[in-house]
Amino acid sequence: MQRKDIPYKTYLTEDEMPKQWLNIKAFMPEQHDPFLNPATLKPCTREDLLPVFCGELVDQELNTTDRYIDIPQEIRDFLKLYRPSPLVRAYELEKALDTPAEIYYKFEGNNTSGSHKLNSAVAQAYYAKRQGLSSVTTETGAGQWGTALSMACGFFGLDLKVYMVKVSAQQKPHRRAVIETYGGQVIPSPSDTTQAGRKILERMPDTGGSLGCAISEAIEVATSTPNCRYVLGSVLDHVALHQSVIGLETKTALDKYGVTPDIVIGCAGGGSNLAGLIAPFMADKLLGKNNIRFIAVEPASCPSLTRGKYAYDFCDTGKTTPLARMYTLGSGFIPSANHAGGLRYHGMSPILSKLYHDGYLDEARTAEQSSVFEAAVFFARCEGTLPAPESSHAIRVAIDEALACKRTGEKKKILFGLTGTGYFDMSAYSSYLRGDMRDYVPTDADLQPGFESLPDIPHNRNL
Amino acid sequence: MQRKDIPYKTYLTEDEMPKQWLNIKAFMPEQHDPFLNPATLKPCTREDLLPVFCGELVDQELNTTDRYIDIPQEIRDFLKLYRPSPLVRAYELEKALDTPAEIYYKFEGNNTSGSHKLNSAVAQAYYAKRQGLSSVTTETGAGQWGTALSMACGFFGLDLKVYMVKVSAQQKPHRRAVIETYGGQVIPSPSDTTQAGRKILERMPDTGGSLGCAISEAIEVATSTPNCRYVLGSVLDHVALHQSVIGLETKTALDKYGVTPDIVIGCAGGGSNLAGLIAPFMADKLLGKNNIRFIAVEPASCPSLTRGKYAYDFCDTGKTTPLARMYTLGSGFIPSANHAGGLRYHGMSPILSKLYHDGYLDEARTAEQSSVFEAAVFFARCEGTLPAPESSHAIRVAIDEALACKRTGEKKKILFGLTGTGYFDMSAYSSYLRGDMRDYVPTDADLQPGFESLPDIPHNRNL
Repeated sequence: MQRKDIPYKTYLTEDEMPKQWLNIKAFMPEQHDPFLNPATLKPCTREDLLPVFCGELVDQELNTTDRYIDIPQEIRDFLKLYRPSPLVRAYELEKALDTPAEIYYKFEGNNTSGSHKLNSAVAQAYYAKRQGLSSVTTETGAGQWGTALSMACGFFGLDLKVYMVKVSAQQKPHRRAVIETYGGQVIPSPSDTTQAGRKILERMPDTGGSLGCAISEAIEVATSTPNCRYVLGSVLDHVALHQSVIGLETKTALDKYGVTPDIVIGCAGGGSNLAGLIAPFMADKLLGKNNIRFIAVEPASCPSLTRGKYAYDFCDTGKTTPLARMYTLGSGFIPSANHAGGLRYHGMSPILSKLYHDGYLDEARTAEQSSVFEAAVFFARCEGTLPAPESSHAIRVAIDEALACKRTGEKKKILFGLTGTGYFDMSAYSSYLRGDMRDYVPTDADLQPGFESLPDIPHNRNL
Repeated sequence: MQRKDIPYKTYLTEDEMPKQWLNIKAFMPEQHDPFLNPATLKPCTREDLLPVFCGELVDQELNTTDRYIDIPQEIRDFLKLYRPSPLVRAYELEKALDTPAEIYYKFEGNNTSGSHKLNSAVAQAYYAKRQGLSSVTTETGAGQWGTALSMACGFFGLDLKVYMVKVSAQQKPHRRAVIETYGGQVIPSPSDTTQAGRKILERMPDTGGSLGCAISEAIEVATSTPNCRYVLGSVLDHVALHQSVIGLETKTALDKYGVTPDIVIGCAGGGSNLAGLIAPFMADKLLGKNNIRFIAVEPASCPSLTRGKYAYDFCDTGKTTPLARMYTLGSGFIPSANHAGGLRYHGMSPILSKLYHDGYLDEARTAEQSSVFEAAVFFARCEGTLPAPESSHAIRVAIDEALACKRTGEKKKILFGLTGTGYFDMSAYSSYLRGDMRDYVPTDADLQPGFESLPDIPHNRNL
């Protein structure tokens, strides 16, 4: 096959779009340790999770046997509104780097939410509606997830309360306005609408809020409101499942041109994008069908895979969720004010944590933000698209790998995930262009307080 | 052919993308009246225009004979970075309206500039580079054009000075940051870098500036700097030529499914988007091959086609440009603060003006902004994409036509242009959602001062 004939952008036809999600857990030789009920320290049962999450999503969360799960027609129709997303051959970036490497990226930013988050939002809103719920709640920090969920809830006719970190709601009124345009109700958190919020406001009336507090408020409302559940945009296994459309589309497009990547790179915050991008490639690797090198990239300021511990921890800083065994900096860890808001998470998807622990996810690498923005600006000027700071972590490493090929002469095929656009991150770009962006790498002592908050639980998957 | 098989989104392959622009003037039975040199009132010659514009663009501006003009390979390669743009069948909008009509739209917002402006920016930057220029200047109001040109100049390695209306630069620091990320230099106008700017600052030191003043500054710099020219993003014939890629892609996609639209709708400010969208359909109409109804939509607050005069006028409020015969509200007309910044222009493309005057562009219709935003929010919730206020004028009329079909039972095929996204217009959406958006329709007396500024020139194309 004429590999050089691959176009700048490859779009699948609707018929070629995935009809099933890929459940990577059903390919893994060992499962990650189960979530634990924090009250009993026993593995969470379906019944433990049903008061918080939709039933179908709980079933997906606990499904370790079905390799493929049908995507309902209603979800596929919604996906057609903004997918397929393009697989791009970065010819102009290759030229600018003068590298023998081939660089490919899957671009998930061509929808109004501006990122891949919509892939799971639509599924979660659909199942909530099908279960007969009248509303859902969630939290949002920078606002991508809140926007995506508002778009999905607006479409399916579901009420939505978004607890938005107060300082974000104040600093990003336009993000808030997008959420409201699609019908979602934004409540700056902490608020006086919940016990959790009121308690914090009593102690700290002037606080700008935190993601941990917003999660606590959203869960409290979901579990105390009739016909309401809580939804989460990352970390969990069912979110990784929904995001597998990213990798499935990518692989179908590459297969048309006979291309198997040598390296697959993704940024990793909670892990949903990386888990989705690598899904079918990792499945093949677990079946012994390829030897792809997988690289997760995280901010040097929030290095959960590279410097965290593989341990049981809460998924939220408010310590209200089940315990998950994952790479974590401790649920009490507060990352510095890095501009990649979507990567400021103390933990990591349990699936990715397990794959990393067992050596299938080959490498985790950190990048400092000024080098990330250097790569972002370089990329924007070559390829046109203005990348999100989160995605630019993957760009940084893709460029580094391509430059390594330039030194060695290797013609590696490098694939990375471009998860979103940077429209709402221009203050970060301005800071970089002005030259006043600071890098921050925590010392071991800085990390210690987070680790001290880890519950002392033996890691025994037969618990 | 099975028309119902048309997918939600149709993307052409790279091979199917246009290799030539369509020059609508070469299809027109009569040409529009020539530009006049304001000093002599004689038709502008090539030599009159060369100090201001690139040579190749002047040739395109004056070309009335070649029906198709080759798109250079370098431009086609750049176009591949963000094109083809999708032709969308608005199935979800049709369902929500419960209309028998078929609704199609061509979406031009999937690039970092957020609009169709990039189609001409790339061509103009390329020809400037090929001519050996080292820099170009332009003006920008809301910032779409400045962003598009900065992306193109960044790619081809050309210095760019953007005179940005001062109040815009202050209110939209993020737009400014995007322009700077791609390497463009933003100068809030009026500035002390030009005679024109200094003169205005002397008289009005606190002015927020105007597009007219920014144009004057940009032209002054272009004509007084070695190896520099001025570029404009709308109105002119060569801009309409470059924008023909919109219509050419649309027609190729529709032809695959045997669809000929009954109605084609576009918003019209300076006219570049509408001229581009209708190009091949209008060419066929001029050849007697179809009977499509073309509708231009403009804000009720700036009704140049519907309530303007067909007369010679300056293209800028500063009265520094050649005179063009067009539908105009007078170059002294200051439209009210409508949120669709891209449609706040006193005049109209001379090509579209002529087509409207001669009855080929069938209808011009106005829309008030609250009804435009009502359509925008409805569309966003059905189709996902958040539309720009400008584009939403076309959405309003497309919805009205589809509802008319619902009443009559007609299965009309309606095509409209979705020129861009609304990311940078959220304060307008917020105003609409809060219920404090005001509509403004000028009275005849309000329009009078503009008309009084029209030069008294007999309309005789044999001048």
